[in-house]
Amino acid sequence: MPQPPADLLKARHARVRAALTRERLDALVVFHLPNIRYLTGFAGSAAILVVSEDDLTLLTDGRYVTDVETSVAPGCPGLRLVKVDPAYDATLARLLKSGARSRIGFESAHLTVTRFEWLSAALRGSAAGRPDSGPLVGAERLVEAGRIRKDAFEQAIFRRAGALLDAVAAHVLNGVKAGQRERDVAADIDDRIRRGGFERPAFDTIVASGPHAALPHARPGDRVLQAGDLVVLDFGGVCDGYCVDITRTVSVGEPGLAARRLYEAVAESQMAAVRVIRPGAAVTDVDEAARAVLEGHGLGPAFSHATGHGLGLEIHEEPRVGPRRTDIPGVPPAGRDEVLEAGVVFTVEPGAYVAGFGGVRIEDDVLVTDDGVAWLTGVPRELRVV
Amino acid sequence: MPQPPADLLKARHARVRAALTRERLDALVVFHLPNIRYLTGFAGSAAILVVSEDDLTLLTDGRYVTDVETSVAPGCPGLRLVKVDPAYDATLARLLKSGARSRIGFESAHLTVTRFEWLSAALRGSAAGRPDSGPLVGAERLVEAGRIRKDAFEQAIFRRAGALLDAVAAHVLNGVKAGQRERDVAADIDDRIRRGGFERPAFDTIVASGPHAALPHARPGDRVLQAGDLVVLDFGGVCDGYCVDITRTVSVGEPGLAARRLYEAVAESQMAAVRVIRPGAAVTDVDEAARAVLEGHGLGPAFSHATGHGLGLEIHEEPRVGPRRTDIPGVPPAGRDEVLEAGVVFTVEPGAYVAGFGGVRIEDDVLVTDDGVAWLTGVPRELRVV
Repeated sequence: MPQPPADLLKARHARVRAALTRERLDALVVFHLPNIRYLTGFAGSAAILVVSEDDLTLLTDGRYVTDVETSVAPGCPGLRLVKVDPAYDATLARLLKSGARSRIGFESAHLTVTRFEWLSAALRGSAAGRPDSGPLVGAERLVEAGRIRKDAFEQAIFRRAGALLDAVAAHVLNGVKAGQRERDVAADIDDRIRRGGFERPAFDTIVASGPHAALPHARPGDRVLQAGDLVVLDFGGVCDGYCVDITRTVSVGEPGLAARRLYEAVAESQMAAVRVIRPGAAVTDVDEAARAVLEGHGLGPAFSHATGHGLGLEIHEEPRVGPRRTDIPGVPPAGRDEVLEAGVVFTVEPGAYVAGFGGVRIEDDVLVTDDGVAWLTGVPRELRVV
Repeated sequence: MPQPPADLLKARHARVRAALTRERLDALVVFHLPNIRYLTGFAGSAAILVVSEDDLTLLTDGRYVTDVETSVAPGCPGLRLVKVDPAYDATLARLLKSGARSRIGFESAHLTVTRFEWLSAALRGSAAGRPDSGPLVGAERLVEAGRIRKDAFEQAIFRRAGALLDAVAAHVLNGVKAGQRERDVAADIDDRIRRGGFERPAFDTIVASGPHAALPHARPGDRVLQAGDLVVLDFGGVCDGYCVDITRTVSVGEPGLAARRLYEAVAESQMAAVRVIRPGAAVTDVDEAARAVLEGHGLGPAFSHATGHGLGLEIHEEPRVGPRRTDIPGVPPAGRDEVLEAGVVFTVEPGAYVAGFGGVRIEDDVLVTDDGVAWLTGVPRELRVV
């Protein structure tokens, strides 16, 4: 697993430290593992990271100590390792109490109430002048905000991962045919992902045939692919920690007129969306472009999800490429009219779903470049008849 | 996916309702998806469940409405469906405000601080007589406590899943040999799991060879299996939602004396642990039995993890079969001297890890029966030379 270069890690740390200054925080406690990986390269399953102006401390347990000492710490500027003893939150409380910090930010979107209450009680009284509320201050998106724009190291991984996923997709599209069960096709895809250079599938593979294709999140089952089916194949892989994601829809046997029209409308919608992508465009413009095409074909209500989602160390991350809307609590921030910048990576995946008949989705991954957009995936998008 | 029979679902609801009475709560808000699945059969990726004395309301979004109406609600006594609009927590707040409830329990171990604060603000003032703190009351383990003892429906799934995993393991052990890369062996295992009747692997498969076998949580890499290696193979599958888990260690070529002794000590340790399992035994006794054997062989420090963990809708659930200890915050409750009861399902997986040399782990799944224990997995445990 390649480690991000030290200078890029330093730049990531600097962005978080700038946020600390802005929010008048003495430190940030990072609980979310993808954020920890982003800031250190640590890829294990348990850790806590504390970032302050002059310190970067990773807490992890005995399982990962050797790995951190030999592979993570040497390449991560300023990283100090603390071995967990006897438990994570107790070790964290001890560490936080040892510093003279009065405002300690924590990732409130990634800490449960149970753990927060225990930590608060453990720290209460340790903050000078704030005896009642304690030093913990909820903070959100201090790391995620920086993760939206991918740096050079990440962009290189995405270009490689996109090419690998294209190769998997080409193989998969060649192999799918009438008579196969959905679940066997899905198993073939997952096997190909594993052997095609990925660590693992990025999510549960979708193979949805015939009427199942009308459900955007169908699970592969015992249904056998048969003539007249549209089949939605949606899969992805994790490469060096980063997720890529593709969908193609095939027709089993010659498609009827309705199926062909559905397909062409979705393909046109995807192209219209990609055409508006460039630095400075609002994410909601991308969604609107896709939606307008489908509405023009009378398929507005058939497009029941957002146009896309950011990709990175998580399969769904910012930006949410969805419709403009007022703020909805507990939902990622589209509607905030975020503006695209060079380095943002996301999916463009319009779809149209007709209950009882079937559905079409076409999905590719794109990277916003300095002057437009680059496709990261590109296996042919024409309707393939199998 | 078979749905639990209605009478068993009713019994599960009754246990939660008894807990509500005990804790003087008017309702419980269930956020944890495995708990929701346990109480309703709903297997989707997003929902909230509200349980009260006379109501059982499932909130889910458009993706799952049809599935709930046709497959979940008909078999789940008393279930009422509310479609999320426009977002989960807003819909939940509306629902909770519509009832005259002054103490609403919520799963504090499964709700983030950000969501809790939003919900608290939305509900504040709606609780008669508690204008400041609002009606939300943290509650823990109200559903989990019931999940420890598996009912007849669950035990039947476990017996079938254990047999399926044995068949996968037999095939895997036959195929592994010198010259293979760890990651290819892992891909073979995952493929076999998918084709062997499981929905998917239950966790990231471990194939750890030679010195890698000294790391209990090694990831399969490019290392090639070679003569003199011990190879730890740890994998599992999800069958009808339930997780099973097995580990075998093989020797590539004839093992040396040290490898053989390490293996025999771990095998003896596992047998000693299983021998004490029966209703009424403390989980810490099981761990102590395993640990005593390894300590007798001078391998106490080489056994660096707990003896086992509960299995169910999650791959790690209660009970934690670990050493006796005082309460550690943020860690599942072993040390509480939990007593085994008929119906509890867990792994027994002692191991010994020697840095630079290698390691051995042997893991099987067991079910506590009325008068002792039943093995759920049983592919031969003798050291296999490949």
